[in-house]
Amino acid sequence: MNGKMKAIVKHHRGYGAELQMVDIPQIKEDEVLIKVKATSICGTDVHIYTWDEWSESRVNPPYVFGHEFAGEIVEVGSKVSNVAMGDQVSAETHIVCYECPQCLTGDYHICKNTKIIGVDTHGCFAEYVALPAVNVWKNPKDMPYDVASVQEPMGNAVHTVLAGDVAGKTVAVIGCGPIGIMAVGVAKAAGASQVIAVDLNEYRLDLATKMGATTVINAKENNPVDLVMELTDGNGVDVICEMSGHPIAMNQGFKMVTNGGRVSILSLPVRPVELDITNDIVFKGVTVQGITGRKMYTTWQQVSRLLKSGQVDVKPMITHHFPLEDFEKGFDLMISGQCGKVVLQP
Amino acid sequence: MNGKMKAIVKHHRGYGAELQMVDIPQIKEDEVLIKVKATSICGTDVHIYTWDEWSESRVNPPYVFGHEFAGEIVEVGSKVSNVAMGDQVSAETHIVCYECPQCLTGDYHICKNTKIIGVDTHGCFAEYVALPAVNVWKNPKDMPYDVASVQEPMGNAVHTVLAGDVAGKTVAVIGCGPIGIMAVGVAKAAGASQVIAVDLNEYRLDLATKMGATTVINAKENNPVDLVMELTDGNGVDVICEMSGHPIAMNQGFKMVTNGGRVSILSLPVRPVELDITNDIVFKGVTVQGITGRKMYTTWQQVSRLLKSGQVDVKPMITHHFPLEDFEKGFDLMISGQCGKVVLQP
Amino acid sequence: MNGKMKAIVKHHRGYGAELQMVDIPQIKEDEVLIKVKATSICGTDVHIYTWDEWSESRVNPPYVFGHEFAGEIVEVGSKVSNVAMGDQVSAETHIVCYECPQCLTGDYHICKNTKIIGVDTHGCFAEYVALPAVNVWKNPKDMPYDVASVQEPMGNAVHTVLAGDVAGKTVAVIGCGPIGIMAVGVAKAAGASQVIAVDLNEYRLDLATKMGATTVINAKENNPVDLVMELTDGNGVDVICEMSGHPIAMNQGFKMVTNGGRVSILSLPVRPVELDITNDIVFKGVTVQGITGRKMYTTWQQVSRLLKSGQVDVKPMITHHFPLEDFEKGFDLMISGQCGKVVLQP
Amino acid sequence: MNGKMKAIVKHHRGYGAELQMVDIPQIKEDEVLIKVKATSICGTDVHIYTWDEWSESRVNPPYVFGHEFAGEIVEVGSKVSNVAMGDQVSAETHIVCYECPQCLTGDYHICKNTKIIGVDTHGCFAEYVALPAVNVWKNPKDMPYDVASVQEPMGNAVHTVLAGDVAGKTVAVIGCGPIGIMAVGVAKAAGASQVIAVDLNEYRLDLATKMGATTVINAKENNPVDLVMELTDGNGVDVICEMSGHPIAMNQGFKMVTNGGRVSILSLPVRPVELDITNDIVFKGVTVQGITGRKMYTTWQQVSRLLKSGQVDVKPMITHHFPLEDFEKGFDLMISGQCGKVVLQP
Repeated sequence: MNGKMKAIVKHHRGYGAELQMVDIPQIKEDEVLIKVKATSICGTDVHIYTWDEWSESRVNPPYVFGHEFAGEIVEVGSKVSNVAMGDQVSAETHIVCYECPQCLTGDYHICKNTKIIGVDTHGCFAEYVALPAVNVWKNPKDMPYDVASVQEPMGNAVHTVLAGDVAGKTVAVIGCGPIGIMAVGVAKAAGASQVIAVDLNEYRLDLATKMGATTVINAKENNPVDLVMELTDGNGVDVICEMSGHPIAMNQGFKMVTNGGRVSILSLPVRPVELDITNDIVFKGVTVQGITGRKMYTTWQQVSRLLKSGQVDVKPMITHHFPLEDFEKGFDLMISGQCGKVVLQP
Repeated sequence: MNGKMKAIVKHHRGYGAELQMVDIPQIKEDEVLIKVKATSICGTDVHIYTWDEWSESRVNPPYVFGHEFAGEIVEVGSKVSNVAMGDQVSAETHIVCYECPQCLTGDYHICKNTKIIGVDTHGCFAEYVALPAVNVWKNPKDMPYDVASVQEPMGNAVHTVLAGDVAGKTVAVIGCGPIGIMAVGVAKAAGASQVIAVDLNEYRLDLATKMGATTVINAKENNPVDLVMELTDGNGVDVICEMSGHPIAMNQGFKMVTNGGRVSILSLPVRPVELDITNDIVFKGVTVQGITGRKMYTTWQQVSRLLKSGQVDVKPMITHHFPLEDFEKGFDLMISGQCGKVVLQP
Repeated sequence: MNGKMKAIVKHHRGYGAELQMVDIPQIKEDEVLIKVKATSICGTDVHIYTWDEWSESRVNPPYVFGHEFAGEIVEVGSKVSNVAMGDQVSAETHIVCYECPQCLTGDYHICKNTKIIGVDTHGCFAEYVALPAVNVWKNPKDMPYDVASVQEPMGNAVHTVLAGDVAGKTVAVIGCGPIGIMAVGVAKAAGASQVIAVDLNEYRLDLATKMGATTVINAKENNPVDLVMELTDGNGVDVICEMSGHPIAMNQGFKMVTNGGRVSILSLPVRPVELDITNDIVFKGVTVQGITGRKMYTTWQQVSRLLKSGQVDVKPMITHHFPLEDFEKGFDLMISGQCGKVVLQP
Repeated sequence: MNGKMKAIVKHHRGYGAELQMVDIPQIKEDEVLIKVKATSICGTDVHIYTWDEWSESRVNPPYVFGHEFAGEIVEVGSKVSNVAMGDQVSAETHIVCYECPQCLTGDYHICKNTKIIGVDTHGCFAEYVALPAVNVWKNPKDMPYDVASVQEPMGNAVHTVLAGDVAGKTVAVIGCGPIGIMAVGVAKAAGASQVIAVDLNEYRLDLATKMGATTVINAKENNPVDLVMELTDGNGVDVICEMSGHPIAMNQGFKMVTNGGRVSILSLPVRPVELDITNDIVFKGVTVQGITGRKMYTTWQQVSRLLKSGQVDVKPMITHHFPLEDFEKGFDLMISGQCGKVVLQP
C-alpha cells in the first residue's frame, strides 16, 4: 500500500514525541500490513517518551514507537499462509531468531537474539504497522479492539501468574501497574483463594479491588509483611508476583512468602538488589522465577481464552481512550499514575 | 465415652441396612471421638447397601458403614496433639501404613496397605465415630456441616481436575454423579475457558449447569464427540475428567481429547476396557492419569480453601437432607439418580 | 544439482523394493540437498518393504523410502540461514505445519498435519535427499555417520525414557527392538538403579545386556511379572517403557509397575487392547503417556549431547553395515530379528 | 541400655570439643538406640567446633554433637514397627513437627518447626545415639558403614542436582566441598553431558575429577565465566549447583547460566548478596531454587539406590578414617581443606 499515514514519532534524543505524517510501511513476502484500530501505552513507551537512561542506551530516534495494538489485516505478503485479509489481529512483540538453542527447544520468549517491536523496529503508534506474519495473533471477530490491544501486557500477567499452580493457593501481587492489576484478575480467575494486592497508589489499589483482589494493602499505611502474615494465619502466601521492581517491596515479598513458596519476578529493578539468600530462599526452600515476555504462543492462547470465556474481564482496567492525536494526554496520565490502561485510537 | 448410640448398620450379606443402637466406640491414645453432625452418602455406600459383587467380595457385615461426614471432637486420646476438644472436623477416609515405599515418598493416597473407613473399619453413619487423630482435618468454625461433609468427595474432584493445568483450557467432565458435578465447579473456579458436562441424566446435567458448566451434553440425544469437536473448532478438549466408568463414554473421551491432552480417570469400570492405544493415546501424545483418593493433605488444603474463599460453592449440589433415621429415603434417591448429594443428620 | 543417482525405490504395491537410477531431487529456496553417507533401516521401512496392511492404506508407490540418515550438505536454498554447505547433518522426520494449535504451543511432534519423510515424501535410501532446512539437525564433525544416522530412532528412545524422572528409579523396557535396546542405554545413562529388559529374542536380549541392562528376562522362559516383583522386593518398577506393542506384554507391564509409576508407550499395537483400568491404572495411581516422534528439537539436543559426551554408546547396537546396493540383505536381517541396527552406505 | 559411653562433647562456648564418658541415652517408646559404627564430619560440625557466630547464636553446650552416621539398632521402643533389632541404619537429621502446613502437604524438609540432630538435640559423635524411629533409614546389609554414613550429605547433593532435569544437560558445580564433589558424581550418574567443577582448592578439584567432572576450573587461575562460555559454544550451562556461598562465585554462576537455566542454591551465604535480578534472572528467564535438607524420604530412596546400583561411587571422596578418639585430627583436616570426607569410627 502506498501513501502517507499519521504516526507518533520519537523524533529526537530527549523528552517527548511528535505526531508526523510518514510513509505507510511496505511489506515483505512473509509480512502483513495491519490497519491499527487501537493501541495502548506500555510502561516501556513511557520510558522512551520521558527519555530515561535505558532509552538513551537502547533506542535510535527517529522512529515510530508503540507495540501493544489490535487491528485488521489489509495487505498480505505472497508467502503468508497463517492469516488472511480482513483478519482481526494483535501481535507478539518479540521477533525471535528461531535458530539459537533457546528457540530450538521452544523457549522463544528467551531467544538470545530477540528484537522488540517499537523498540528495535518501527512500532504501532500509527495508522498502519507492517509485521512478520509469524508474529501475528488472530483475534475473535467479537473482541473489542481496546480489549484485544491489552492482550500483550495481559500476556505478561498470565505468564507470571500461571508459571505455577494457583487454584486454592494464596497469592500476593506486589506492584499494581496495569500488568499487576491484570495479574490480580488472572489469579482470581485461576482459583486463588486469596489475592492480596500491594501498592502505594490508591487509584490503582481501587482498580485491583475491581479486578477481584480480596485484600488491598497500601504499603504507605500498613506493613504489608505483618498484614499478609495475619491474613494467612502466620504462614505467609504461596505465591508472590513481583511487579514493583523496588528493592524494599521485593524484599518484603521474600519475607511474606511461605516455606516452599514461589516468587515470580516480572519487574526490572534498575540496579542490583540485595537478597537474604540464606534465610529467604534456601532455608525456606523458595523457588524464584524470572519471567519475561510471553510463551510463544502458549500464553497467547491462555490470554485469548480467558478473555473470550469471560473468566477475566479487563474492561475495568482500561480507564482511558484518546484519539491518536491526543497522545500527550495519554502519556501525561501514565506519568501521573492516575489511570489503568490508556488506549489510543488512530 | 460410654453408652449407646444410633447407627446405620450393614447387618447382613444382602440388600439394605438397619438402624440399630450400638456401643459408642472407645478411642485409643492416638484417636479422637467425634460427634457426627452431618454425613453424606457416597456411591460406595450405595454399592454396600445394594450388596453388589464388589461388596460381596470386600466387606464383612455386621458393621457401621459411611465415610463422609463433619462433626465436633468430643474426646481426645492422650497422645493426640494436632486437634483438640471442640474442634470442628472432617476426616480423610484412607488409613495408611506410613511404612511402604509409597508412604515413604509422600504418596500416601496410593499406599499399598490402605484401609478405608466405613469399608474396612467402622464408619460414620452414626452419632459418634472414633478415628486416628492423624486422619482428622480441621474445618473453619463457620463452615456449615453439610458443606464440610462433602469435602471428602469434593477432594476426589479436586484431585482429578487439578492433576494438571486448567486455567485457559477446555475441560470435559464425562459422568455427572456428585463428584462429576463438583468437578465442573472446580474446573470453572480454576479458570477453564470451557467446561463441558456429559451425562445421560437430565437432573444431573441441570446441576452441572448450576455448578458452572458452559455446555451440557445429554449423550442420549447428541453425539458428544461431534458436539465437542464443534465447540472446540475441531481441535478437541484439553482435559477429560472421566467419571462415568462406562466403556463407551470412556472411549468417547479418548476421541474428543486433543493431541497432547490429558485424560484423568477417577471412575472404576467394572471390567477391562478396550482402548485404541495406537490412535487415541500414542499418536495423539495423550497423558492418562489414574486418580484415587485425595493427596494427603495437599488436596484437603485445596478443597478447604476453594470452599472458604467462595471460589467453589457446593450448595446447589447438596440437594437433600434427612434425619439419620430416614436413611432409606436417602438411599432410594441415590439409586434413582434424581438427586445431587444426600446428607443425613444424626 | 542435476544428474542421476542410485535410490531404493518402493516400486509397486507389493513385497520388496528395487534399486533404480532416478533424478537427483531439485531443492526449493527453503530446502537443502544432502549427500547421504549412511542410512539405517527402521521398522517402518520393513512394514513398507513387506507391504503390510498399514502400508497398503498409507503409502503411494513408486517413491524413494527411508528416513534415518546422516550426510553432508551439498546445496543450499537461497532463503536458508540455519545451515551451510559442508555441514554434516541428520534430519527430523516429521514435517509439520507450524500453524495448528499444537504447533502454536510448541508441541510440533503431535502436529495434526504431520507429513513423514520417506512415507509421505521422498526419503533417504538414495545418494541424495532434499529436505526443508528447518528439519535439518547439525552434527558434530567427529560423529561417525552410522552413529549420526541412528539419532532419529534414538530420539524415540530418549523421548520415551526421559518423559519423566529416571535417576535412582527402576525401569523395565518391554520389547527390545533397536529402539528398546537404545532405551536401555539411555535409562542407564540417566541414572536408573535397575534397567530390566524383556523380550523373547535372545539375540536382542544380548544386545540389551551390552547396552547396560542390569537384568534381561526372556518372557518365553520366565514370567516377567514374577521376576520383576522379586527384583524389586515386591514393589514393582517405577517406569515401564512399552515398546513391544503386544497386548499380553503390555498388560504384564501394567502388572509390574508400582503404585504411582509411569508407563510410557511408544509402541503401536495393531488393534485395540483391553486394559484393567480400575486395578492397573486408577487404584495404582499410574500415569500412562503416549509417546510419538521426538520433541522438536529438545529431544535432538538431548540425543546429540548424550552421544557426544559418551554417556550413551550406540555402537554395540549397530550390528551390520551394507552398501546401499545390498539393501535386500539388510531387510532380510531385519525380518529375521537377528540384528541390532542395520546401516546402508550409498 | 544402661552404662557409660565415649562421646565427643561440645563442652564449652568456645573453640574445640572434648572426649568424655557420658551416660548411654535412654530411649522413649517411639525411639530406637543405635550403636554407631561410623560417623562423618560435616561443615556444620566444623562451625560448632571452631565456635563461629552462628554457633554462638544457635547451640547450647554442653552436648554431644554430630549428625552423619551409620550403625546398628540395639534397642527398640515399644511402639516402633518400622525397624527392628539388628537393622543397619542411618538417619534423617531433621526432626519435624508433622503438623504445620508444610508437613501437612508433604514438604517435611521445610517444616517450620524443624529440630536438627546434633544441633538442637544430642548427636552421633558417640558410641550410641537415641533417635525417633520415624527418622531412621534402613541400609542394605552389604553397604559399608562409612559409605552409609555419608548418605545424609549425599542427600543434599542429590536434592540439589535432581531438583530438575539433568540428562543431556550441562551442569556446573560451584564450590567443591564434600557435598559439591558428590554433586559432581550425581550429575554424572544422572546423564549430564558436561559436569564442570569450580573451586579454588586443587585438592578438591582433583577429587571432583575422580568423581567424574568433565572439566575442573580453578577460579584463582582462570575466569570461570569465560571458560564455561567457551566450553558451551557461548551458550552457558543449563544448571548451576551453587555450593560455595561466596557472593562473587554466586554471581559468576548467574553469569554462566544459559537463558531458561536453573540455579539451585544449597549454600548459605553469611550475609545478603547483591544480585543483578534484571539481567541475570528476569531477562534470562532463569529459575532459582533454594534447597535445604533432603526430601523425606524421596531423596533417601534416590541416594540409597544410586549407591546400591553403583551409579555413584562415593569412595574416592571418603579420604580419611580415624578412631573416634582422634577427632581432633579429623577436624584439623577439615579446617585445612586437604581432605574429602573424614569418617570417625567409635
